[in-house]
Amino acid sequence: MRAASEESSAPTVVIAGLGLIGGSLAASLKATGFCQRCLGWGHREASLARGVELGIIDDYTLDLDEALAEADILVLATPTLVAEALLREILPSLRERPRPPVITDVASVKGNLWHAARAAWGDRHPPRLVLAHPIAGSERSGVDAANAQLFVNHRVILTPDADNDPAAVALVRAMWASTGAEVVDMAVEAHDRVLAATSHLPHVLAYALVDALASSDASEDIFRFAAGGFRDFTRIASSDPVMWRDIAIANAPALLQSIDRFSEHLKAVRGAIERADADALHDTFTRAKSARDEFSRLLASRGQS
Amino acid sequence: MRAASEESSAPTVVIAGLGLIGGSLAASLKATGFCQRCLGWGHREASLARGVELGIIDDYTLDLDEALAEADILVLATPTLVAEALLREILPSLRERPRPPVITDVASVKGNLWHAARAAWGDRHPPRLVLAHPIAGSERSGVDAANAQLFVNHRVILTPDADNDPAAVALVRAMWASTGAEVVDMAVEAHDRVLAATSHLPHVLAYALVDALASSDASEDIFRFAAGGFRDFTRIASSDPVMWRDIAIANAPALLQSIDRFSEHLKAVRGAIERADADALHDTFTRAKSARDEFSRLLASRGQS
Repeated sequence: MRAASEESSAPTVVIAGLGLIGGSLAASLKATGFCQRCLGWGHREASLARGVELGIIDDYTLDLDEALAEADILVLATPTLVAEALLREILPSLRERPRPPVITDVASVKGNLWHAARAAWGDRHPPRLVLAHPIAGSERSGVDAANAQLFVNHRVILTPDADNDPAAVALVRAMWASTGAEVVDMAVEAHDRVLAATSHLPHVLAYALVDALASSDASEDIFRFAAGGFRDFTRIASSDPVMWRDIAIANAPALLQSIDRFSEHLKAVRGAIERADADALHDTFTRAKSARDEFSRLLASRGQS
Repeated sequence: MRAASEESSAPTVVIAGLGLIGGSLAASLKATGFCQRCLGWGHREASLARGVELGIIDDYTLDLDEALAEADILVLATPTLVAEALLREILPSLRERPRPPVITDVASVKGNLWHAARAAWGDRHPPRLVLAHPIAGSERSGVDAANAQLFVNHRVILTPDADNDPAAVALVRAMWASTGAEVVDMAVEAHDRVLAATSHLPHVLAYALVDALASSDASEDIFRFAAGGFRDFTRIASSDPVMWRDIAIANAPALLQSIDRFSEHLKAVRGAIERADADALHDTFTRAKSARDEFSRLLASRGQS
């Protein structure tokens, strides 16, 4: 690897963790020329070598210090709890550097990283750490699923902190804009609450449903006679269990609140079914259909229909 | 309308309720020539006239007695609870006829119809009533969504009774086979249990989730930042509220059991999240992913991927 150049106009980007998201980001940054070089870092040489073979990174290293020395931008694209552990490990060593690399991430939860970073930096947000979350994915995983178009028309949420170096925020914003994503800002707590509701809770429900059905006596008939609606509803239960285990733990406070809120609504519907309350069921189902139809129109207007 | 002919080789089929399912069945029976004539009956002349305009029925009547006099096969394609009410109304008047029409239905629940029919026929299953359930649908509804190909490669479950006239069962079986569906038999109780698990419960969960999110303070941000996984997961919440209100009430016993079973599993996942039990979460999510992936392969092998 060559030495990192602070002066180069196009930055050297190091992707830590070359899975679906990291690989897709690398592929996009290479394709658009946003990065001068795109490098991989990780523990598994096979994935990194495959990344070079696929042409989505230029080179790789297994050495974290080398990765940090090369990087203008370091993107933590590991599972959520690994990103948290990496921040705890990396940040103290960067405190004394005059101009540490910009560090960003792609994790689905921001609160745990925000707290870990603050603790590791001495009760203050590291100025060059810009937390980010691309809202894109696939039930496929691994570097072979990488797709340079994955972020086009999708949202990337940044959760900049008051302590952030504005140039670092601008660089991360520019990186994501280059992928075709729409970059928006949110507060850390709002992000975690909204993602718990729209993503983490549905995944938990899908996993719980499929597990409940699979453990039933009638599971064979159940899967034999299930149809298209069931397929759509349970598709997200095919997502990576390690990733979702980490997300569930990292976002536990907001997710538990979401589960409880959902359970209250389910209990109300259950009560209406038990007392054959046709009006209550009709009201709830109609309200839900209106909200869902409105959401459909919203997605269609964003070109994601 | 011409007089019904018992001798014609191709039967006259009367569709009661010309919505998505009734309209699609009519369209298919007309296209294949399974029926000599395909007639519509209902309370709403506009839908029936539209059916004639679309060429999916030959003619229609608003008069139930005329419909019964014409029909070799009467298909109740109304919402579930309307089908139950119709059976209560029609069956007593048919008891004295030497050769009443074969009656069948398309409802998503069989137990309530089975009980209603038995009560109306004098504690015995009407020999010419063959309960059936095509497992096909769409979030679209109404006659304009009718599609002659809707049942191709989909399953139709018959729940024949020991008291059934074998010729009536054979005729209903032949009718559904002509649409390209795969016709299978099940017991009434097994049908309702399996459908509660695979279809009615997921719909209740989707409605409850969307309603919970829509009633949240953050609902605007929630729908703004929701992505593709959420879209798939909640698609079924766009289904017809009247239809699902009826299904929930008609299949209350099996559905309540399914809700309770699901709630137990959700409670277990909630507990694992609360105590940050990474192993328990990983086990559950992995088990669910395996079951879901297996189901995907099953659907793919049936040509429904």
